[in-house]
Amino acid sequence: MDKKWEIISSKYLLESKWINVRKDKVRMPKGVELDDFYILEYPDWINVIAITEEGDFVLERQYRHGTQTVEYEICAGVIEKGEEPIVAAQRELYEETGFGGGEWSLYCVTAPNPAAMTNRNYTFLAKGVKQISSQHLERTEDIDVIVVSREEVKQILKDGKMMQGIMQAPLWRMFYEEEGR
Amino acid sequence: MDKKWEIISSKYLLESKWINVRKDKVRMPKGVELDDFYILEYPDWINVIAITEEGDFVLERQYRHGTQTVEYEICAGVIEKGEEPIVAAQRELYEETGFGGGEWSLYCVTAPNPAAMTNRNYTFLAKGVKQISSQHLERTEDIDVIVVSREEVKQILKDGKMMQGIMQAPLWRMFYEEEGR
Repeated sequence: MDKKWEIISSKYLLESKWINVRKDKVRMPKGVELDDFYILEYPDWINVIAITEEGDFVLERQYRHGTQTVEYEICAGVIEKGEEPIVAAQRELYEETGFGGGEWSLYCVTAPNPAAMTNRNYTFLAKGVKQISSQHLERTEDIDVIVVSREEVKQILKDGKMMQGIMQAPLWRMFYEEEGR
Repeated sequence: MDKKWEIISSKYLLESKWINVRKDKVRMPKGVELDDFYILEYPDWINVIAITEEGDFVLERQYRHGTQTVEYEICAGVIEKGEEPIVAAQRELYEETGFGGGEWSLYCVTAPNPAAMTNRNYTFLAKGVKQISSQHLERTEDIDVIVVSREEVKQILKDGKMMQGIMQAPLWRMFYEEEGR
Protein backbone atom coordinates (compact mmCIF):
# COMPACT_ATOMS: atom_id res chain seq x y z
CA MET A 1 0.00 0.00 0.00
CA ASP A 2 1.89 3.03 -1.25
CA LYS A 3 -0.22 5.46 0.77
CA LYS A 4 0.93 4.14 4.15
CA TRP A 5 2.66 6.59 6.49
CA GLU A 6 6.02 5.66 7.95
CA ILE A 7 6.26 5.99 11.73
CA ILE A 8 9.58 7.66 12.54
CA SER A 9 9.05 7.59 16.30
CA SER A 10 6.26 7.04 18.84
CA LYS A 11 5.77 8.21 22.38
CA TYR A 12 2.98 7.32 24.82
CA LEU A 13 1.49 10.33 26.58
CA LEU A 14 -1.05 8.28 28.51
CA GLU A 15 -1.49 4.56 29.18
CA SER A 16 -4.62 3.38 30.98
CA LYS A 17 -7.08 0.51 30.97
CA TRP A 18 -9.49 2.24 28.59
CA ILE A 19 -7.31 4.32 26.33
CA ASN A 20 -3.69 4.95 25.36
CA VAL A 21 -2.74 8.28 23.81
CA ARG A 22 0.22 7.96 21.44
CA LYS A 23 2.12 10.75 19.70
CA ASP A 24 3.64 9.67 16.38
CA LYS A 25 6.22 11.46 14.31
CA VAL A 26 5.37 10.34 10.78
CA ARG A 27 6.58 10.65 7.20
CA MET A 28 3.98 10.62 4.44
CA PRO A 29 4.65 8.96 1.06
CA LYS A 30 5.24 12.32 -0.64
CA GLY A 31 7.91 13.17 1.94
CA VAL A 32 5.94 15.50 4.23
CA GLU A 33 6.81 14.95 7.90
CA LEU A 34 4.52 15.61 10.85
CA ASP A 35 5.94 15.85 14.37
CA ASP A 36 2.78 15.31 16.35
CA PHE A 37 0.02 13.09 15.04
CA TYR A 38 -2.02 11.88 18.02
CA ILE A 39 -3.42 8.35 18.00
CA LEU A 40 -5.95 7.01 20.48
CA GLU A 41 -5.41 3.30 21.08
CA TYR A 42 -8.59 1.62 22.26
CA PRO A 43 -9.52 -2.03 22.64
CA ASP A 44 -12.11 -3.24 20.13
CA TRP A 45 -15.73 -2.73 21.08
CA ILE A 46 -19.02 -4.54 20.51
CA ASN A 47 -22.59 -3.42 20.37
CA VAL A 48 -25.80 -5.43 20.10
CA ILE A 49 -29.08 -4.93 18.27
CA ALA A 50 -31.19 -7.07 20.62
CA ILE A 51 -34.71 -7.88 19.46
CA THR A 52 -37.26 -9.78 21.52
CA GLU A 53 -39.47 -12.62 20.30
CA GLU A 54 -42.22 -10.00 19.95
CA GLY A 55 -40.03 -7.88 17.63
CA ASP A 56 -39.31 -5.14 20.16
CA PHE A 57 -35.85 -3.63 20.70
CA VAL A 58 -33.90 -3.72 23.97
CA LEU A 59 -32.43 -0.25 24.48
CA GLU A 60 -30.58 1.45 27.29
CA ARG A 61 -30.53 4.97 28.68
CA GLN A 62 -27.56 6.38 30.50
CA TYR A 63 -25.65 9.56 31.21
CA ARG A 64 -22.60 10.11 29.02
CA HIS A 65 -19.91 12.39 30.36
CA GLY A 66 -18.34 13.26 26.98
CA THR A 67 -21.40 15.12 25.68
CA GLN A 68 -22.90 15.55 29.20
CA THR A 69 -26.23 14.24 27.95
CA VAL A 70 -28.49 11.31 28.74
CA GLU A 71 -28.42 9.06 25.67
CA TYR A 72 -30.54 6.27 24.30
CA GLU A 73 -28.22 3.46 23.25
CA ILE A 74 -28.04 -0.12 22.18
CA CYS A 75 -26.03 -2.38 24.48
CA ALA A 76 -22.30 -1.72 24.03
CA GLY A 77 -19.03 -2.58 25.68
CA VAL A 78 -15.36 -3.43 25.47
CA ILE A 79 -13.95 -6.77 24.30
CA GLU A 80 -11.72 -8.07 27.07
CA LYS A 81 -8.22 -9.28 26.22
CA GLY A 82 -8.45 -12.69 24.57
CA GLU A 83 -12.24 -12.64 24.45
CA GLU A 84 -14.12 -13.53 21.25
CA PRO A 85 -16.29 -10.63 20.05
CA ILE A 86 -19.51 -12.66 20.26
CA VAL A 87 -18.69 -13.74 23.82
CA ALA A 88 -18.15 -10.10 24.77
CA ALA A 89 -21.45 -9.17 23.12
CA GLN A 90 -23.44 -11.86 24.94
CA ARG A 91 -21.72 -11.04 28.24
CA GLU A 92 -22.42 -7.31 27.91
CA LEU A 93 -26.09 -7.83 27.00
CA TYR A 94 -26.49 -10.11 30.00
CA GLU A 95 -24.67 -7.78 32.40
CA GLU A 96 -26.25 -4.53 31.24
CA THR A 97 -29.82 -5.70 30.61
CA GLY A 98 -30.35 -9.24 31.94
CA PHE A 99 -31.48 -10.32 28.45
CA GLY A 100 -30.11 -13.40 26.71
CA GLY A 101 -30.90 -16.35 24.50
CA GLY A 102 -32.02 -15.98 20.89
CA GLU A 103 -30.15 -16.36 17.61
CA TRP A 104 -26.92 -14.35 17.32
CA SER A 105 -25.00 -13.26 14.22
CA LEU A 106 -22.31 -10.71 13.39
CA TYR A 107 -24.11 -8.00 11.47
CA CYS A 108 -21.41 -5.49 10.53
CA VAL A 109 -18.11 -3.95 11.55
CA THR A 110 -17.48 -0.22 11.83
CA ALA A 111 -14.58 1.95 12.96
CA PRO A 112 -15.31 4.71 15.47
CA ASN A 113 -12.70 6.99 13.86
CA PRO A 114 -10.15 5.63 11.36
CA ALA A 115 -8.25 8.93 11.33
CA ALA A 116 -7.18 8.80 14.96
CA MET A 117 -8.54 5.71 16.71
CA THR A 118 -7.15 2.22 16.23
CA ASN A 119 -10.19 0.15 17.10
CA ARG A 120 -13.11 -1.57 15.42
CA ASN A 121 -16.66 -2.01 16.63
CA TYR A 122 -18.48 -5.31 15.99
CA THR A 123 -22.27 -5.07 15.81
CA PHE A 124 -24.17 -8.24 16.62
CA LEU A 125 -27.79 -8.93 15.80
CA ALA A 126 -29.54 -10.98 18.51
CA LYS A 127 -33.03 -12.07 17.49
CA GLY A 128 -35.49 -13.57 19.92
CA VAL A 129 -33.83 -12.55 23.19
CA LYS A 130 -35.72 -12.58 26.47
CA GLN A 131 -35.23 -11.42 30.03
CA ILE A 132 -33.36 -14.21 31.82
CA SER A 133 -31.94 -12.32 34.80
CA SER A 134 -31.74 -8.95 36.48
CA GLN A 135 -28.88 -6.57 35.56
CA HIS A 136 -25.35 -7.17 36.82
CA LEU A 137 -23.92 -3.67 36.75
CA GLU A 138 -20.50 -2.46 37.78
CA ARG A 139 -20.47 0.20 40.48
CA THR A 140 -19.74 2.89 37.88
CA GLU A 141 -22.69 1.88 35.68
CA ASP A 142 -26.18 3.36 36.00
CA ILE A 143 -28.20 2.01 33.10
CA ASP A 144 -31.97 2.06 32.55
CA VAL A 145 -33.28 -0.72 30.31
CA ILE A 146 -36.25 0.00 28.06
CA VAL A 147 -37.99 -2.20 25.53
CA VAL A 148 -39.50 -0.27 22.64
CA SER A 149 -41.11 -0.98 19.29
CA ARG A 150 -39.28 -0.83 15.96
CA GLU A 151 -41.11 2.40 15.08
CA GLU A 152 -40.14 3.93 18.42
CA VAL A 153 -36.47 3.18 17.68
CA LYS A 154 -36.76 5.09 14.40
CA GLN A 155 -38.38 8.02 16.20
CA ILE A 156 -35.63 8.07 18.84
CA LEU A 157 -33.04 8.19 16.06
CA LYS A 158 -34.88 10.94 14.17
CA ASP A 159 -35.31 12.96 17.36
CA GLY A 160 -31.53 12.93 17.95
CA LYS A 161 -31.86 11.02 21.20
CA MET A 162 -29.37 8.31 20.18
CA MET A 163 -26.43 10.34 18.96
CA GLN A 164 -23.67 7.71 18.77
CA GLY A 165 -22.69 7.18 15.12
CA ILE A 166 -21.61 3.54 15.48
CA MET A 167 -25.03 2.78 16.99
CA GLN A 168 -27.02 4.70 14.39
CA ALA A 169 -25.20 3.13 11.44
CA PRO A 170 -26.16 -0.54 11.95
CA LEU A 171 -29.73 0.36 12.93
CA TRP A 172 -30.38 2.48 9.81
CA ARG A 173 -28.63 -0.19 7.72
CA MET A 174 -30.91 -2.87 9.11
CA PHE A 175 -34.02 -0.77 8.56
CA TYR A 176 -32.86 -0.15 4.97
CA GLU A 177 -31.99 -3.77 4.28
CA GLU A 178 -35.18 -5.15 5.77
CA GLU A 179 -37.54 -2.46 4.51
CA GLY A 180 -35.88 -1.03 1.39
CA ARG A 181 -37.57 -1.38 -1.95
CA MET B 1 -30.95 16.23 35.03
CA ASP B 2 -30.42 14.03 38.06
CA LYS B 3 -28.10 11.66 36.21
CA LYS B 4 -25.42 14.30 35.61
CA TRP B 5 -21.96 13.64 37.03
CA GLU B 6 -20.33 16.28 39.21
CA ILE B 7 -16.81 17.23 38.16
CA ILE B 8 -14.69 17.46 41.32
CA SER B 9 -11.51 18.44 39.48
CA SER B 10 -10.10 18.51 35.94
CA LYS B 11 -6.58 18.38 34.58
CA TYR B 12 -5.40 18.72 30.98
CA LEU B 13 -2.90 16.05 29.94
CA LEU B 14 -2.62 17.34 26.37
CA GLU B 15 -3.67 20.54 24.62
CA SER B 16 -3.27 20.80 20.86
CA LYS B 17 -5.01 22.23 17.81
CA TRP B 18 -6.90 19.00 17.05
CA ILE B 19 -7.55 17.45 20.44
CA ASN B 20 -7.35 18.12 24.17
CA VAL B 21 -7.13 15.21 26.58
CA ARG B 22 -8.71 15.98 29.95
CA LYS B 23 -8.67 13.86 33.09
CA ASP B 24 -11.72 14.42 35.29
CA LYS B 25 -12.26 13.35 38.86
CA VAL B 26 -16.01 12.86 39.04
CA ARG B 27 -18.80 12.02 41.46
CA MET B 28 -21.80 10.13 40.17
CA PRO B 29 -25.34 10.79 41.48
CA LYS B 30 -25.30 7.64 43.63
CA GLY B 31 -22.08 8.81 45.30
CA VAL B 32 -19.52 6.70 43.45
CA GLU B 33 -16.32 8.63 42.74
CA LEU B 34 -13.95 8.01 39.86
CA ASP B 35 -10.42 9.47 39.92
CA ASP B 36 -9.58 9.21 36.26
CA PHE B 37 -12.26 9.57 33.62
CA TYR B 38 -10.57 10.65 30.38
CA ILE B 39 -12.37 13.08 28.08
CA LEU B 40 -11.29 13.94 24.55
CA GLU B 41 -12.19 17.52 23.70
CA TYR B 42 -12.55 17.98 19.95
CA PRO B 43 -13.94 20.84 17.88
CA ASP B 44 -17.21 20.01 16.14
CA TRP B 45 -16.94 18.35 12.74
CA ILE B 46 -18.93 18.37 9.51
CA ASN B 47 -19.34 15.86 6.74
CA VAL B 48 -21.11 16.15 3.39
CA ILE B 49 -23.22 13.80 1.31
CA ALA B 50 -22.49 15.46 -2.04
CA ILE B 51 -24.62 14.33 -4.99
CA THR B 52 -24.14 15.52 -8.55
CA GLU B 53 -26.89 16.65 -10.91
CA GLU B 54 -26.70 13.15 -12.42
CA GLY B 55 -27.37 11.55 -9.02
CA ASP B 56 -23.84 10.27 -8.46
CA PHE B 57 -21.98 10.59 -5.14
CA VAL B 58 -18.73 12.48 -4.63
CA LEU B 59 -16.49 10.28 -2.46
CA GLU B 60 -12.90 10.46 -1.31
CA ARG B 61 -10.21 7.88 -0.70
CA GLN B 62 -7.36 8.47 1.69
CA TYR B 63 -4.98 6.76 4.08
CA ARG B 64 -6.03 6.90 7.72
CA HIS B 65 -3.31 6.49 10.31
CA GLY B 66 -5.60 5.36 13.18
CA THR B 67 -6.63 2.11 11.51
CA GLN B 68 -3.67 2.19 9.06
CA THR B 69 -6.04 1.53 6.17
CA VAL B 70 -7.07 3.33 2.99
CA GLU B 71 -10.69 4.35 3.49
CA TYR B 72 -13.51 5.44 1.26
CA GLU B 73 -15.12 8.50 2.84
CA ILE B 74 -17.52 11.31 2.29
CA CYS B 75 -16.00 14.79 2.55
CA ALA B 76 -15.33 15.64 6.20
CA GLY B 77 -13.54 18.25 8.24
CA VAL B 78 -13.29 20.44 11.29
CA ILE B 79 -15.41 23.53 11.94
CA GLU B 80 -13.03 26.42 12.52
CA LYS B 81 -13.53 28.66 15.55
CA GLY B 82 -16.46 31.00 14.90
CA GLU B 83 -17.37 29.34 11.61
CA GLU B 84 -20.97 28.33 10.83
CA PRO B 85 -21.29 24.57 10.23
CA ILE B 86 -22.64 25.03 6.69
CA VAL B 87 -19.78 27.38 5.82
CA ALA B 88 -17.30 24.78 7.05
CA ALA B 89 -19.06 22.09 5.02
CA GLN B 90 -19.03 24.12 1.80
CA ARG B 91 -15.41 25.14 2.38
CA GLU B 92 -14.27 21.56 2.99
CA LEU B 93 -16.08 20.19 -0.07
CA TYR B 94 -14.48 22.89 -2.21
CA GLU B 95 -10.98 22.38 -0.77
CA GLU B 96 -10.99 18.59 -0.74
CA THR B 97 -12.81 17.90 -4.01
CA GLY B 98 -13.24 21.10 -6.03
CA PHE B 99 -17.01 20.50 -6.10
CA GLY B 100 -19.55 23.18 -5.20
CA GLY B 101 -22.89 24.71 -5.99
CA GLY B 102 -26.17 22.83 -5.58
CA GLU B 103 -28.82 22.93 -2.85
CA TRP B 104 -27.54 22.48 0.70
CA SER B 105 -29.39 21.40 3.84
CA LEU B 106 -28.48 20.09 7.29
CA TYR B 107 -29.43 16.44 7.22
CA CYS B 108 -28.63 15.15 10.71
CA VAL B 109 -26.36 15.51 13.72
CA THR B 110 -24.42 12.67 15.30
CA ALA B 111 -21.90 12.37 18.11
CA PRO B 112 -18.69 10.46 17.41
CA ASN B 113 -18.59 9.11 20.96
CA PRO B 114 -20.82 10.58 23.69
CA ALA B 115 -19.05 8.55 26.40
CA ALA B 116 -15.67 10.22 26.00
CA MET B 117 -15.73 12.82 23.23
CA THR B 118 -17.31 16.24 23.58
CA ASN B 119 -18.05 17.01 19.95
CA ARG B 120 -20.89 16.74 17.45
CA ASN B 121 -20.77 16.00 13.75
CA TYR B 122 -23.11 17.87 11.37
CA THR B 123 -23.99 16.03 8.17
CA PHE B 124 -25.01 18.19 5.23
CA LEU B 125 -26.79 17.02 2.13
CA ALA B 126 -25.64 18.84 -1.02
CA LYS B 127 -27.75 18.02 -4.05
CA GLY B 128 -26.77 19.00 -7.57
CA VAL B 129 -23.10 19.82 -6.96
CA LYS B 130 -20.63 20.07 -9.82
CA GLN B 131 -16.90 20.37 -10.31
CA ILE B 132 -16.07 24.07 -10.16
CA SER B 133 -12.36 23.95 -9.40
CA SER B 134 -9.40 21.67 -8.80
CA GLN B 135 -8.61 20.54 -5.23
CA HIS B 136 -6.98 22.92 -2.74
CA LEU B 137 -5.28 20.49 -0.38
CA GLU B 138 -3.12 21.21 2.63
CA ARG B 139 0.39 19.76 2.52
CA THR B 140 -0.64 16.97 4.89
CA GLU B 141 -3.63 15.93 2.76
CA ASP B 142 -3.48 13.30 0.01
CA ILE B 143 -7.04 12.74 -1.14
CA ASP B 144 -8.31 10.96 -4.26
CA VAL B 145 -11.74 12.10 -5.43
CA ILE B 146 -14.06 9.55 -7.03
CA VAL B 147 -17.59 9.95 -8.32
CA VAL B 148 -19.65 6.78 -8.03
CA SER B 149 -23.26 5.70 -8.46
CA ARG B 150 -25.74 5.31 -5.61
CA GLU B 151 -25.56 1.51 -5.93
CA GLU B 152 -21.76 1.63 -5.81
CA VAL B 153 -21.95 3.59 -2.53
CA LYS B 154 -24.11 0.83 -1.04
CA GLN B 155 -21.65 -1.81 -2.22
CA ILE B 156 -18.69 0.10 -0.73
CA LEU B 157 -20.54 0.24 2.60
CA LYS B 158 -21.45 -3.46 2.48
CA ASP B 159 -17.87 -4.40 1.58
CA GLY B 160 -16.57 -2.61 4.69
CA LYS B 161 -14.56 -0.12 2.65
CA MET B 162 -16.06 2.93 4.38
CA MET B 163 -15.64 2.05 8.05
CA GLN B 164 -16.32 5.39 9.75
CA GLY B 165 -19.56 5.16 11.76
CA ILE B 166 -20.52 8.83 11.48
CA MET B 167 -20.25 8.51 7.68
CA GLN B 168 -22.17 5.25 7.45
CA ALA B 169 -25.03 6.44 9.65
CA PRO B 170 -26.33 9.35 7.50
CA LEU B 171 -25.86 7.37 4.26
CA TRP B 172 -27.86 4.35 5.46
CA ARG B 173 -30.44 6.72 6.95
CA MET B 174 -30.83 8.48 3.62
CA PHE B 175 -31.11 5.21 1.72
CA TYR B 176 -33.76 4.08 4.22
CA GLU B 177 -35.71 7.35 4.14
CA GLU B 178 -35.68 7.64 0.36
CA GLU B 179 -36.16 3.96 -0.45
CA GLY B 180 -37.94 2.50 2.57
CA ARG B 181 -41.41 1.07 2.17
